[in-house]
Amino acid sequence: MLVVKELLFPQVQGVYIDQVLQEHKVELRPTTLSEERHLVTLQKRPCSSKLRRLLSLKHLPNIYPDVLNLYYHSCVCKSLARPRQHDEWFRFPFTVVVHVERAECEGYPDADSSESYKLSVCSGQAALRAETVWGALRGLESFSQLVYQDDFGEYFVNETKIEDFPRFQFRGILLDTSRHYLPLHAILKTLDAMSYNKFNVFHWHIVDDPSFPYQSSTFPDLSSKGAFHPSTHVYTQIDVKRVIAHARLRGIRVLAEFDSPGHTQSWGKGQPGLLTPCYKGTVPSGTFGPVNPANSSSYQFMTRLFKEVTSVFPDSYVHLGGDEVDFTCWKSNPDVRGFMLKMGFGTDYTKLESYYMEKLGLNKTAIVWQDVFDYHEKVMDTVLHIWKGSPGQIQQELSSITLAGYRVILAAPWYINHIDYGQDWEKYYTIQPLNFTGTEQQKKLVIGGEVCMWGEYVDATNLSPRLWPRASAAGERLWSDERMTSSVIDAFPRLVDFRCRLLRYRVMLI
Amino acid sequence: MLVVKELLFPQVQGVYIDQVLQEHKVELRPTTLSEERHLVTLQKRPCSSKLRRLLSLKHLPNIYPDVLNLYYHSCVCKSLARPRQHDEWFRFPFTVVVHVERAECEGYPDADSSESYKLSVCSGQAALRAETVWGALRGLESFSQLVYQDDFGEYFVNETKIEDFPRFQFRGILLDTSRHYLPLHAILKTLDAMSYNKFNVFHWHIVDDPSFPYQSSTFPDLSSKGAFHPSTHVYTQIDVKRVIAHARLRGIRVLAEFDSPGHTQSWGKGQPGLLTPCYKGTVPSGTFGPVNPANSSSYQFMTRLFKEVTSVFPDSYVHLGGDEVDFTCWKSNPDVRGFMLKMGFGTDYTKLESYYMEKLGLNKTAIVWQDVFDYHEKVMDTVLHIWKGSPGQIQQELSSITLAGYRVILAAPWYINHIDYGQDWEKYYTIQPLNFTGTEQQKKLVIGGEVCMWGEYVDATNLSPRLWPRASAAGERLWSDERMTSSVIDAFPRLVDFRCRLLRYRVMLI
Repeated sequence: MLVVKELLFPQVQGVYIDQVLQEHKVELRPTTLSEERHLVTLQKRPCSSKLRRLLSLKHLPNIYPDVLNLYYHSCVCKSLARPRQHDEWFRFPFTVVVHVERAECEGYPDADSSESYKLSVCSGQAALRAETVWGALRGLESFSQLVYQDDFGEYFVNETKIEDFPRFQFRGILLDTSRHYLPLHAILKTLDAMSYNKFNVFHWHIVDDPSFPYQSSTFPDLSSKGAFHPSTHVYTQIDVKRVIAHARLRGIRVLAEFDSPGHTQSWGKGQPGLLTPCYKGTVPSGTFGPVNPANSSSYQFMTRLFKEVTSVFPDSYVHLGGDEVDFTCWKSNPDVRGFMLKMGFGTDYTKLESYYMEKLGLNKTAIVWQDVFDYHEKVMDTVLHIWKGSPGQIQQELSSITLAGYRVILAAPWYINHIDYGQDWEKYYTIQPLNFTGTEQQKKLVIGGEVCMWGEYVDATNLSPRLWPRASAAGERLWSDERMTSSVIDAFPRLVDFRCRLLRYRVMLI
Repeated sequence: MLVVKELLFPQVQGVYIDQVLQEHKVELRPTTLSEERHLVTLQKRPCSSKLRRLLSLKHLPNIYPDVLNLYYHSCVCKSLARPRQHDEWFRFPFTVVVHVERAECEGYPDADSSESYKLSVCSGQAALRAETVWGALRGLESFSQLVYQDDFGEYFVNETKIEDFPRFQFRGILLDTSRHYLPLHAILKTLDAMSYNKFNVFHWHIVDDPSFPYQSSTFPDLSSKGAFHPSTHVYTQIDVKRVIAHARLRGIRVLAEFDSPGHTQSWGKGQPGLLTPCYKGTVPSGTFGPVNPANSSSYQFMTRLFKEVTSVFPDSYVHLGGDEVDFTCWKSNPDVRGFMLKMGFGTDYTKLESYYMEKLGLNKTAIVWQDVFDYHEKVMDTVLHIWKGSPGQIQQELSSITLAGYRVILAAPWYINHIDYGQDWEKYYTIQPLNFTGTEQQKKLVIGGEVCMWGEYVDATNLSPRLWPRASAAGERLWSDERMTSSVIDAFPRLVDFRCRLLRYRVMLI
């Protein structure tokens, strides 16, 4: 007998299986192909037509392939396997009834969106209750995973009761599209796989030193001169819209990062005068450093760029970067030194960076890498993003940042681009984000974690097999209850089964 | 100006480019689509019709995609680009004339097959001379790499003269289809990529402890009980024939390995009585060890199996394994101990293994892993295969084996399944197989090297991006002259260009 509880990934918070019913399989009766009879039927307080599409038959099969299988399975069976039961099937289609409780309809998932759901599966019918459509999507993913095939290809689902909700609000995957360009389909495929793993934030590290593939409508030269190729290796406005729409249908936020003042070499190609000219002695060396913080034109440019970015990306958060600023070039430049003097910063260039970051005022919540906090205790109202350090240093950083009252996202232990021989998912699985010295109040400031796939050695040829199912381990850590997921040994068979699902969904190609 | 010399991979032994002609591009004039006019025309001493097919228009485009591009390019140009030149193109198609010098026609490439060729490209025509069809295939690969596109999509080839031949006779890739099953298409795709890299031996480590996917006609239970799945995870006789045929069309030998007496756990499932029952004290423990060398039935079985194997696989070499035999189980078994006594082996179980290996007499040349040599100086007339040790130990092993007069293949430095973060192709590139203490005569006994892709953590999802272009570095080391390929810096741009070709040929998918 297949024990459903053991095969869900990530593990849900609670699964209650009636011991008696567990003894006999409950056959799933597929629905018909009639347009009127949906496998998934929206009932009770339907949202506006725009939002109903989120859960429509058109999109769902693409999002949950197992639902697709179920649906199409009916035609195979009807015509070949059991013609005698034909009538009965029409009378009793298996239906998932989705109740979305909140009357208000949300345009996009956001930081406060509830993702909790309750799922009850019994003979012939499943009931899914959620506060929001985003929770309903999470529930459908769980339902999808509950469905299994026996050796004869028949689909079954066991009687199940689930009450489920995420442990952390922010569960992200970072893709870096600057060091290697990722074609659109690779990003969309990653979003698909994220939804199977209940990740809910796509952190798009879209530009960096090597290339600027974002095609800005305000500053088209940034990509035409700063991308690897001005037309084949860019993301057009239509591409970006497609990513955001694809993510939304999967309950995933798109968090854009335009990292500055460092990591901006590619910006300088299309925006002359933006970067700091480095000096060798008293003459310019011909090379450039970070954004020039001494020029008011830099801030005018950044304001206009972020005006566009915050309008293109609907999420209420934006990532400003702020990491790894090399002060050598600033120090070499006489104008920057003059500005330091004028501002009374002395020789403390961290103050200059702080000044720069604070000047990037937005009407959105900013996320910045930890460097911004490390330099000066007073930062603007931002979320800090931990990306470096030994386990001990990370714990210390978590303590310090939360003690200062800031919210924090943990990425450092999940730099999944780093590879090694053999299985390393255990390493990602056993991370405990709240394992640091701090009060309960401090712990609540850890809003989540993020798996980072930096692009130094990653492009579309190796992205998927490097990301999945290794990231699934982090996915479970971030969604599931800590006590229910303390054992690597218990997780392994579920992860193995889940990997087969990912193969079936063509996340990794064979 | 594109310098052809720098873009060939692996580097050919000699490229002579007229400095004057190098200054202006020589336009390649594509051939027509008429059946009578072949892009590649066999002239002078054509082989029998069976062998002519090796170089026929039907197969070549599949083997050398750039030739395909050339061929089809003609229709595009004809209809769209330059209708006025239409007539001229018909009059002067670009032709590669292939002369195969040896009158005898070979069925399969073998250890002694010449792969040398001479290629001369001038305006409108290329002449390729080779002793054998296998050499002609290598020359066509080089020709294929000489063709390049300019920014407007036009194809060009520079005037070139090449005299080329391999440095080592044996240039292998090992795939392990026991630890993870590899679907047929993954093997065929690897053969394609091997031919682009001028590898010429596919070492098929087809069975091992975890599974026995080879579907034997003599012993069908071996796969029906020993494979991961009796029908989906096996290689049928038709599959094996397809691999051999696909390899032959690319001038690649298929070297089958049926590793014994260790690494045979999966064999025991379909052949009860074959493996040694291990004992705990005086009673069988229920587990099994290597093939039981004390039973004459073991030898009868092996003889029948190898009779089939040597008939199915046409190559004159077969790999018998012989590595990592754990003597613990043999020592625990009273029958084996009795056999040791009877044979006068004392307590030296290496003698027992030696006895076993020598009893596997075949009418083919055997290759065995180095363990067989390490245990006893006297081995049968075999080729030794080095798979382990530190760089110093490997040099010592090369010295010892060649001093004893045996031929040797070096695999240890190229365990390409082992991965690490960042670029590691330099490590594979800088291996010098002849860098050991020995006479010139000893050096000649190093017949080649092999890249091993063991399957512990490799299946079709990650095989290609893990294998290519990392194996290309070893490919160049084994084909090209050592003095011409001493610089990693010089190799890098050629390898980058070659990786783009591999992407175009869909070796790695994006």
